[in-house]
Formats: sequence, C-alpha cells, structure tokens
Amino acid sequence: MNKRIPFEILVRFGTALLEKKSVNKELALEMSELAVRAQASGTQTHGIKMFLFLIGSMDARTESGQLILDPLAVPVIIKEAAGSAVIDAQWGFGHPAMKLALQTAMQKAKICGISMVGVINSNWIGSLGVYALQVAEQGFLAQLWSQSTRCKDVAPLGGREARFGTNPVCMAVPTGGDPMVADMSTAVQSAGKTWQMIERRQSATDEIFMDKNGNFTNDPQVFADKGSMLFLGGRHYGHKGYGLSFWAESLIGMAGGRMNHPDIYAHNMNLTVIDPEAFGGRDVFIQEMERFIEHVKSSALQPGVKGIRYPGERMAEAIRTAMKQGVIVDDGLVEKLNDAAAKLGLEQRL
Amino acid sequence: MNKRIPFEILVRFGTALLEKKSVNKELALEMSELAVRAQASGTQTHGIKMFLFLIGSMDARTESGQLILDPLAVPVIIKEAAGSAVIDAQWGFGHPAMKLALQTAMQKAKICGISMVGVINSNWIGSLGVYALQVAEQGFLAQLWSQSTRCKDVAPLGGREARFGTNPVCMAVPTGGDPMVADMSTAVQSAGKTWQMIERRQSATDEIFMDKNGNFTNDPQVFADKGSMLFLGGRHYGHKGYGLSFWAESLIGMAGGRMNHPDIYAHNMNLTVIDPEAFGGRDVFIQEMERFIEHVKSSALQPGVKGIRYPGERMAEAIRTAMKQGVIVDDGLVEKLNDAAAKLGLEQRL
Repeated sequence: MNKRIPFEILVRFGTALLEKKSVNKELALEMSELAVRAQASGTQTHGIKMFLFLIGSMDARTESGQLILDPLAVPVIIKEAAGSAVIDAQWGFGHPAMKLALQTAMQKAKICGISMVGVINSNWIGSLGVYALQVAEQGFLAQLWSQSTRCKDVAPLGGREARFGTNPVCMAVPTGGDPMVADMSTAVQSAGKTWQMIERRQSATDEIFMDKNGNFTNDPQVFADKGSMLFLGGRHYGHKGYGLSFWAESLIGMAGGRMNHPDIYAHNMNLTVIDPEAFGGRDVFIQEMERFIEHVKSSALQPGVKGIRYPGERMAEAIRTAMKQGVIVDDGLVEKLNDAAAKLGLEQRL
Repeated sequence: MNKRIPFEILVRFGTALLEKKSVNKELALEMSELAVRAQASGTQTHGIKMFLFLIGSMDARTESGQLILDPLAVPVIIKEAAGSAVIDAQWGFGHPAMKLALQTAMQKAKICGISMVGVINSNWIGSLGVYALQVAEQGFLAQLWSQSTRCKDVAPLGGREARFGTNPVCMAVPTGGDPMVADMSTAVQSAGKTWQMIERRQSATDEIFMDKNGNFTNDPQVFADKGSMLFLGGRHYGHKGYGLSFWAESLIGMAGGRMNHPDIYAHNMNLTVIDPEAFGGRDVFIQEMERFIEHVKSSALQPGVKGIRYPGERMAEAIRTAMKQGVIVDDGLVEKLNDAAAKLGLEQRL
C-alpha cells in the first residue's frame, strides 16, 4: 500500500509542481522541503499532500468571492512590542510567514526570555512539528497553535453542529538527544485522519464521532454527513479538549485574527518561544531533562511493550530511517500527485 | 451529604486555623480567601481542603529529612529578564509566591506583550482557576501550569509504574462577560477526584485506571495499590495527555525547578501572561470573542441538553450562587475541619 521514495526525489518533484504554478524557485524549494520533512516524520495527512492542497487553493475563491491563496503575497509584521509581534500573511503561503515568525520569535525570546508571534490571514502550513522542531534544535522551547477559520470539525459541548476546527498544538523541547515533540489536535484526532478512515472504510475503537442528530458512534462516515468529531477526552472527558480548543481560538482572536467563522477563509497560527537561558539556564535544564527521561524510562513495562519512548522519539527515528531508506508515501497519494503533475504538464513522475 | 456555609464564615474559620499555626493574620486571611473562592467555584478537592493539607505539611519532613513547608519563608525573585522571572518560594506557602508571580507577570506583559514567570520550590496552591481568573479579570490572557515533584499518579506510555503527577493547566481569557476559564489536569482526571472516588466506592465509566501489573480497569481502588491513572485521552489517545504532561514537566525544569523526582518534595508553577493590547488590541478582541461565543452557542443542541456554555461559565454561576446562598462543603470535609479546629484548641466550628 506504501512505497519508499528518496527524500531528494520528493523535494525536487514538489519544487517542480509549485514552480509550474509560478511560485519562485527559492520559495518553492523551501516549501517542498518542509512538506517532505513532515512526510518523513511519518504523516500521510500533513506531509506532501500539501502540494495538492496548495495547487487547489491557488485556483479557488470562496462563495463570497474571497481569494483563498495569493501566491505573490509577502508576509508583513504589522505590530510589535519587545516580546511580541503580529504577522499578516496577507492571504499568501503560510511557509514564508512561519519562517518570519520563527526568526522574529527567537530573536525576541533571546532579549525578553519569552516571545509570542501571531500569524494571521495565512494559508495551511501542514504539520506543526517541522516548525516547532526547528525552534527546539536551536535550544529554545516552542509552543505552536494553529487554527483554520472555516473548519467545522467539532461541536461545542452539548451541541451537535460543529463550531470548531481541530485546533492543533505542537510543543517542542530540547533534550540531550532528539528534541521532545508532541504534536496533536485538540479534537480526539485530526480531520485528515478522519477523512483517511472514511476513505479506508475503517471504524474507531471508541465512539469518537457524533452524527448530525447528536448520536455518538465509532463510524467516521457520519463526519461526511454534517456530523462531527469529539474533543480530546471523548464522551466523558471532552470538556478538557473543549477548553484547549477554546484557548486556541482565543490566541488567534487576541492577535487580531478571525476566530471560527462560517464565511471567512484563513489559517492562523500562534507561536511562543522560550529561552531557558533567561530562566534556570540551558545546561542545567538539559541535565535535568536527561535525568527525567531516564526516570521515565525506568518504569516497569506493560505486558507486551518493548520499551518506553518520550514524545517525539518515534518521529526522530522515522525521519532517520526515511533519510536512509526513503520516505514512505501512500500509493493513493502517489497516484494523485502524478495526476496533478500530468495536468500541469510536468514530465516528472513519482 | 453537602451543606452550604456563608463565604465569610469559611474565610474567618480558615484564617483562624492558619493563625493557630503561627501564620501572620494578613497572609492567613489572603490564603483563606483564595481557598474559599476555589471552594465556591465548585470543587471539593482543591478548595478548603487546603487548610488540612497545609496544617499537615507544616509538621512534616520527608524520609530524607527535607522540611516540607517553612511557614516563615519569603518568596524571592532570583532571576529576571524583560519578559521573564524565576521566583524561588524557598519551601514556603505557594500563595504569596503566586501573588508575586501574578504582579510580576502582568507588569512585564504590559511592557513586552507577553511574560513568563516560573515559581519553584513552593507548596501546594490548590485550584489554579482562582489565580488565572485574576489575570483575566485584569484584561490579560493567562496560562498557568502546575507540577508536584514527588507525585506518582500517571505511568508513561507503555509503562506500568507512575512517573508523572497529574500536571494540571489552567487557561483564562477575558470576554465581554465572565472570563473563559478552563482548568484541567493532563491526566484523565485529578488525583483528588480519584481519591474521592475511592472514598465513595465509585467506579469510572471508562477504563481510566491501570493496576500495578499493567491491566486497565474502571476501578479506582487499584490506584491506592501502586496502580495509576491514565493520561488525558485514555487508552487510545493517551499519547496526547502524555505530550501535554511532558510539556508541563519541561516548563518546570526549564525554570530551574526539579522535574518529577522520587525523593525531592516541591510544588512548581509556570505562569504565562499575554497582553492583547500588544497584539490585535483588547477592544477588537473582546468584540471578536463575543461574536465567537454567540457563534458557538448557535449550534443546535444534543437531545436532552438545555443550552451551551463556554468553559468557565458554570464556574462563574457557581461562585455567584455561593456568594448568595453559601458555599457548598461536603459533610465529611466539615467533620475533618472541625476535628482539626478542636486539635488546635480553636473554639470555632463549621
């Protein structure tokens, strides 16, 4: 069902696809590398599927005529203080906006100890992990939230009509080895995962979906018919995901972005960067983190389990394997990407 | 099983109890008010139970001889940058340390747009909500994490021996009305709640506990016999709670506090304060928040549900009712508090 394709081949393919849509070479290469890195980390839903998403978005407008993606837009800092900034992506690509956000936030964190940068009016940035990881690799801690204005994935507690996207968050922290990375939606799972289950006709173990009438079910098909997913915590503890998701929306609104809205199309992000040097000191922290990881791994194992990993360890291993043996890409996705290449008159195929 | 006791009576009772333990009057009153406010918000586990906890802690040392709580210690800022500070509570009460943290963080956020204050070597602060709420009432956003070094409540993913406390987080955001407040542990529930279930011989709907051999169960009794609770997300999505809890530990370690440790006793906190004025502007935000709340509440309801509340709304209602009709206190807790009063030679009874 899957094949492994060399990292560089995928990057070149993605770059060529984006260049065919008039994206300049340098930017196309950067975006392609980020998407392939996400794919290499083990996701089929937030990796090179990005290429199809962006190609589709560049030709599209909303029903009310709003341009969904302007490939020529340049992200601009529209407001800043010593430790904060707001970047308006002007309905352009999310990747250059996030590049500016990362640089800005790390510079400001070095001065203030902590910084926060809001990115508004952007497009989809795919996996949050590839961005947060870059911050941790520079020795900082990162917390990155993301929201999509028009997504209708999750109903408020007590409701049966979706009013929330899956509002994901990623946290990344330096350690003595691979950074700790935890990348998750505040819904019980991502929308991409649910669409994948629908396509593959899989059902969930738990009743994590709700049909349009408010009945709980483990059948994802209801999601395609005005149903919704539950918040993280599910039926009995979903108030926790509700709180986390409400916080995500609040960070977006606070930065001047639009919170969930039936009409307006935008992706918005919020990045916090923390410099441990301003607190207890980076070296002391790394030492304590290593002690903690050892402490965590010293727990006796559940039956059938071979070892304990900290969050992000599996991802780091997946990336290393992908770099050596090629990046895993789902057959269906290969086919769709090859179709897109053919339509754009590109000779390359995966 | 419960009775309602006037707010002021409870505050006076708590103040008197703490004064009997040589806490000065002003501090005793402040601490008592915070505990009663938490109780008024609807919690039996993180409210005036605090009095019993503190009284017990003041007489105690760990097995290795560490003084658990020094009632005379004064919290000190040991490191700071423009947007950050570390407060060492010096094994004193958490309340004055948190008061200093709130003041410091709000001042710094006004200048930098965002601030972070770590509080290390502290004692238990009870409900996080009463602190975060104060920040939101001043027009800022707050994210407050808390950790207890020696707590063994949750096992790492794949493990069967606890290596994490329940590592709670509270987020509070101003709205046009009552602030949004979401206060939760990153375990499936708080340890206090589990002990309450054990006492009341209740079982959970889901298999949210694990016995010492690694078997999942809905019976909380296993928790008292070297078992553990699961992370938020439970059996199938617990990797999300694992990530959140690992982040909580990281914030503590980053600030120079001790991450989960088998021997050292400390409570550590991490507070982020955000000034919307430095981002999209407070007024614009409140307006957008009000639109969003209306949008959320416009969702059709699940069968049997009367209305949709945002996180924190129920708590605000509970506090208003408690102020008028008295604060709900569990009978068992009343009895324990009266016993403590008798032992300390106090005439007052609840």
